[in-house]
Amino acid sequence: MKPTDDKPYFLKGVPVPETPLPGEDPKPWKQTSVVGKPLPRTDGYERVSGAAVYPSDVLLPDMLYGAILRCPYPNARVKSIDISVAERLPGVRAVITGSTPGADLKWSYGDGVSAKLFDPHCRFEGEAVAAVAAETPYQASDALQAIEVKYDVLPFVVDERKAAESGAPAVHQKGNRVAAPTKYERGDVEKGFAEADVVLEEEYRTECELHTPLELHGCVAKWDHNQLTIWESTQGVYAVQSKVAEVLGLPLAKVRVIGHYVGGGFGSKLRAGKYTVIAALLAAKAARPVKLFLSREETFVTCGNRPPTNMKLKAGVKKDGTLTALQLTVTGTGGAFPAGGVSLVDWQVRDLYTCPNVRTEATDFYTHTGPARPFRAPGHPQGSWALEQMLDALAEKIDMDPVELRLKNIPLFSQARDGKPKYSSTGLKECLETGAKAFGWADARKNRSASQPGHLRRGVGMAACLWFVGGGGPPSTIVLKLFADGSANLNMGASDIGTGTKTIMAMVVSEELGVDPSKIFIENADTGTTQFATPSGGSKTIPTESPAVRAAAIEVKRQLLAMAAQDLKVDASRLAMKEGSIYISNEPSRTVKISDVAGLKKRGVIVGVGYRGPNPANLVVNPFGAQFCEVQVDVRTGEIEILRFVAAHESGRVMNRLTFDSQVIGGITMGIGLASTEFRVLDANETGKLCNRNWHDYKLPTSLDITENITSVPVEILDNEANSTGAKGLGEPVTIPTAAAIANAVYNATGIRITHTPINPVQLSLLFSEKPVKG
Amino acid sequence: MKPTDDKPYFLKGVPVPETPLPGEDPKPWKQTSVVGKPLPRTDGYERVSGAAVYPSDVLLPDMLYGAILRCPYPNARVKSIDISVAERLPGVRAVITGSTPGADLKWSYGDGVSAKLFDPHCRFEGEAVAAVAAETPYQASDALQAIEVKYDVLPFVVDERKAAESGAPAVHQKGNRVAAPTKYERGDVEKGFAEADVVLEEEYRTECELHTPLELHGCVAKWDHNQLTIWESTQGVYAVQSKVAEVLGLPLAKVRVIGHYVGGGFGSKLRAGKYTVIAALLAAKAARPVKLFLSREETFVTCGNRPPTNMKLKAGVKKDGTLTALQLTVTGTGGAFPAGGVSLVDWQVRDLYTCPNVRTEATDFYTHTGPARPFRAPGHPQGSWALEQMLDALAEKIDMDPVELRLKNIPLFSQARDGKPKYSSTGLKECLETGAKAFGWADARKNRSASQPGHLRRGVGMAACLWFVGGGGPPSTIVLKLFADGSANLNMGASDIGTGTKTIMAMVVSEELGVDPSKIFIENADTGTTQFATPSGGSKTIPTESPAVRAAAIEVKRQLLAMAAQDLKVDASRLAMKEGSIYISNEPSRTVKISDVAGLKKRGVIVGVGYRGPNPANLVVNPFGAQFCEVQVDVRTGEIEILRFVAAHESGRVMNRLTFDSQVIGGITMGIGLASTEFRVLDANETGKLCNRNWHDYKLPTSLDITENITSVPVEILDNEANSTGAKGLGEPVTIPTAAAIANAVYNATGIRITHTPINPVQLSLLFSEKPVKG
Repeated sequence: MKPTDDKPYFLKGVPVPETPLPGEDPKPWKQTSVVGKPLPRTDGYERVSGAAVYPSDVLLPDMLYGAILRCPYPNARVKSIDISVAERLPGVRAVITGSTPGADLKWSYGDGVSAKLFDPHCRFEGEAVAAVAAETPYQASDALQAIEVKYDVLPFVVDERKAAESGAPAVHQKGNRVAAPTKYERGDVEKGFAEADVVLEEEYRTECELHTPLELHGCVAKWDHNQLTIWESTQGVYAVQSKVAEVLGLPLAKVRVIGHYVGGGFGSKLRAGKYTVIAALLAAKAARPVKLFLSREETFVTCGNRPPTNMKLKAGVKKDGTLTALQLTVTGTGGAFPAGGVSLVDWQVRDLYTCPNVRTEATDFYTHTGPARPFRAPGHPQGSWALEQMLDALAEKIDMDPVELRLKNIPLFSQARDGKPKYSSTGLKECLETGAKAFGWADARKNRSASQPGHLRRGVGMAACLWFVGGGGPPSTIVLKLFADGSANLNMGASDIGTGTKTIMAMVVSEELGVDPSKIFIENADTGTTQFATPSGGSKTIPTESPAVRAAAIEVKRQLLAMAAQDLKVDASRLAMKEGSIYISNEPSRTVKISDVAGLKKRGVIVGVGYRGPNPANLVVNPFGAQFCEVQVDVRTGEIEILRFVAAHESGRVMNRLTFDSQVIGGITMGIGLASTEFRVLDANETGKLCNRNWHDYKLPTSLDITENITSVPVEILDNEANSTGAKGLGEPVTIPTAAAIANAVYNATGIRITHTPINPVQLSLLFSEKPVKG
Repeated sequence: MKPTDDKPYFLKGVPVPETPLPGEDPKPWKQTSVVGKPLPRTDGYERVSGAAVYPSDVLLPDMLYGAILRCPYPNARVKSIDISVAERLPGVRAVITGSTPGADLKWSYGDGVSAKLFDPHCRFEGEAVAAVAAETPYQASDALQAIEVKYDVLPFVVDERKAAESGAPAVHQKGNRVAAPTKYERGDVEKGFAEADVVLEEEYRTECELHTPLELHGCVAKWDHNQLTIWESTQGVYAVQSKVAEVLGLPLAKVRVIGHYVGGGFGSKLRAGKYTVIAALLAAKAARPVKLFLSREETFVTCGNRPPTNMKLKAGVKKDGTLTALQLTVTGTGGAFPAGGVSLVDWQVRDLYTCPNVRTEATDFYTHTGPARPFRAPGHPQGSWALEQMLDALAEKIDMDPVELRLKNIPLFSQARDGKPKYSSTGLKECLETGAKAFGWADARKNRSASQPGHLRRGVGMAACLWFVGGGGPPSTIVLKLFADGSANLNMGASDIGTGTKTIMAMVVSEELGVDPSKIFIENADTGTTQFATPSGGSKTIPTESPAVRAAAIEVKRQLLAMAAQDLKVDASRLAMKEGSIYISNEPSRTVKISDVAGLKKRGVIVGVGYRGPNPANLVVNPFGAQFCEVQVDVRTGEIEILRFVAAHESGRVMNRLTFDSQVIGGITMGIGLASTEFRVLDANETGKLCNRNWHDYKLPTSLDITENITSVPVEILDNEANSTGAKGLGEPVTIPTAAAIANAVYNATGIRITHTPINPVQLSLLFSEKPVKG
């Protein structure tokens, strides 16, 4: 098997019929001629040339520009707001505050905590206080500065470790502990530790990462009478619709949200922001459309984060590599209004490896910081950071290769779920074996284990993962129209958040109907015009939408073959399709082009509707992966160079080999960010404010920080059970094990284990000074 | 029966089950609580306030304004075009002619006659010669004037009666007769005339009417890479898509046509105009969006007409009123590029009355005039003008009341069609009887037949009609989404050309689901986002779309009741719906609101897809009607005052009583235009040019020319066979008999029969001078 081979291949799986029985769900294709190939995005030209109109590109006649005045303190009460000067400034068309009629609205941050849209008690830096709309962005900015707000500045706590202490400033009246700890337990961990030959315990911490997608957060809002249209940079138009309708008290049908393109969304664009509702209120007050996009700084301050995590992990293993017990304690914070602070951090520990005795406990604390948001594989890279470093340490203690240790504990079913259901397919073993082989793990490990001379130390490390969902999130409906010339129009609710969703859907249509993907127009992500879809997140878009698209295409094919059967005067069951033509199975010379089918010509169109039903209740559909990397550490400066990565991921069928690999590269890049460059710096003692609020001070990995030598090794398993295309989630698993793999490689290179992200020269130098590495 | 009663009532029809059997097409409702009521348009506010964005309102960033240079001669060859000055004028961004690369395109006018987009041989005044796009409409207009064109001006013929003569200038090489006459014959007309007691023969002529809808013809064209988007004022977005794709050689899926609103379309907006393709070419050349709307004058000159018709009708009748034979000869013209010149003129003669012996013959001639287009009930008012005056004359000859004569010859089936199929319902008898009663026909006729003193003479007349289609034009697909809060989104391809289509669809949804029509958002008429539909024309939109909408709503209801059954813990078959709630049939107190149904809340949406299948092959679905009017003629001046109209129309179910009546009033208004004010004046001898090319010179009936006293008497028949809503076409039949009814009333008032439209003071005065009426 060549890792970069572009042909689909199957490690396992049974043959399935090519054509579904009538009324039956189609089974996945056995072989494909379009799906799985490396196809560049069908909207690539639009995206690269600037022809694509992203929400931030939307210009409407008479459009105003909105801006939001934000609280500069982490904890303060608004005493008074004077907008009288601002209202009189040139170009200013609307100024609103919490006391503006119609703007005194409730705002729920999720998890049951409510505040107001303009809350007089600002519990984090960046809370909305007032807003303006003006003829130009500059006039809007001037107007913000002319609004005079008087605050009662209050004591604050922005570090969850301090928030947990007694006497810390209280974020909410009920105290700083969000709720009783969430607990999970199976087996008997005490018994498990007693049975172990080796027991290790370690504390780990991951720092907070901030959301900062390329396209800023924001929207354009426009009213037509009582009908509100919003162009928003979002991962889920229906989620925005639902939130806006709820807050403004509008019927859902009267809120149309359009998000044809989105310039990046990694979880922070899963729902409406306050800015969305504020733009709508400004537009209503000014009776003009309003564009309100946040600045980069506002995005950093208010648009969410992967929250910090403190983990204590204890693990027991027998000499033969059998895991006997795992115990994880987590504390963290989702900020002042938590939306999933520590949730899911324990999932890798719960379910990745066979282990009979597991106990986890997680506790969230309020802090005076901005709200957490889902962040590409929420919780999982944090848990992986702990678990996969622990596995590395255990392997060393029992003198076993880390890959072998993991292979010893391959799961056969989901242990953490009720009833311990089986996986629809399980590629962990294959990922470990295929990835290790492609990386040359055994040799590399042997070479690096020897002590190295000089100040440049090389090391290799690896880590594995699963992603706890991956089977999609039905329902989905797709409407496919095949036009008389054989071109097609596909109507889908889901957003393409940059992952190539639309291209894959075009490939699925092309696979069934032989239509060139360039002749398929896809209308998507518009609550007014497209089908319903759940937001594009959770690595579920492809497994949710592609089976529905395929079902729609099959329905179109059924009708088309029935029409062609009349033309060719044969029974439709004898017909097959290839490259835009229909032919008789055993008479390949008798063909008719799609565009020549008389019935289609006459009718003008064939409409096919496809549904994606729920996942089979008795199965769990999870993707798996394993990543291997080599690093070089300069033990004099603490600088780390990532030399190469091999990523073996099993996500069911590879739908588009090009975007599969892009996802892998993107996921590893974000993992490198977590591992080595990204963290939120708060001035925890003096002001509680964010210190690194731009792309200069907040360090995203650039092309110089990653390596060009990233090899994607798709481990393709024909999953007959997951759904009718066999695709499983990909976008999130690819970032889960990266940071741990790097930490393990750094340990392999230097003998120093970094348990606290990010592994940067500052931290490494400090550690080297405590425990010198001969350089 | 009260004519203005707003409750639905049934003259005949058998009871049908309220709920369809599973898998079966639903039968029409027996009773309704929303459908049939007078509901103002759900988009009325938008239309009246200016919030509705009609295509001519579309403004895009960077948009240019296009304009077309047109040939000023009815027949000329372009010798040369010099665009060098125009190209250099300020603000000019693109100038194109037939020799611009990519603009040398074929253009088919229909009926197999092809020319070029910019044809060097201009065969009618207004043919496109060149086009420009500039920053402002004024700069575009200046640029047109700076284009220097040299023409060879050629002899012309613009009157089809002269074009038929030998030696007339030839419009096309093959001569001026378009094709061999189209002929129809049944029975033996010679035998029929021999059997008659009275045989009459008369010549009739209707003048050419020009299309001039309130919103001008035009579009905005925008390219995104190879994807073309067109906002067009059109009756059928898919028809525009198809024509543009054909001419430009694009895949259909790459041409998106949007026509959310259209400010009037009576047949002239059924397909793309040259302006649509020209706008696209200008936009491509300038790499900017281009708005190209024609001027009112251009619309008059180039956007089509109801062509002139010359008819010779011979009819035989027995003394008892039995029609024995009808023979019609028609000549006409569709202009230089005919699209249905004389077609359908003979249909009333063929099929309205029972008559065993019928012969018709129709011949079209080319003339150097603009192309004919379908014009509200194409052909039919012309044929009615002849037939219904002839019936009036026959009735007088045999001394029988005109209504009685018609009742004697009521058709039981479609005689003109192969196999003589039955009508799904036939309301002609009921229309005649109900209308006559509502009008007080018998008394009015008696009074008016007496000779009148003075110069103001009153008369009453009537005419009947059928419309040769009315069962809709499937296929149609509808997607209906019911949101979690009980509001709904309906996706439909059809245009609402001002007739209230969207409102009726909302009523159908409301009828099934109890959702308030104001909470139903309708997305329609967009090839990129909505379902496929045939153009809104032929009075087929409601019968085509409403059954599909109902089927979609029933499917949503089925799913919703299944969910509610779980909540209420009863079998779904025991559930029914009313006003947004679901209740148990025999326990009306146990209800659940739609928005409280747990399954819907969880799922977020219910999607229902509805189809409208083909009409039953063995039935003809035709609407019928009869109109009665009273006029007052000033025999000194020839002025006619329309005093009152009663219109009894049978179009199956009345879907919305308010828009039903509006259609009747609109149809009568257009009929008054044909009868008395509208006609194209060509300078037939000197220049061949159009003389009346604006709203001052071309006389549309204004509110002062019609009467407020128009009574709509819906004759509602529960049509169990037509389709599942029971609606038949309405928009066109209502204008068919109007002109003939007026002519008959004028005859009744004055004893002078006007056989040549329009009946205006000029014509009447001339006729009075030939055959004086004592005043």
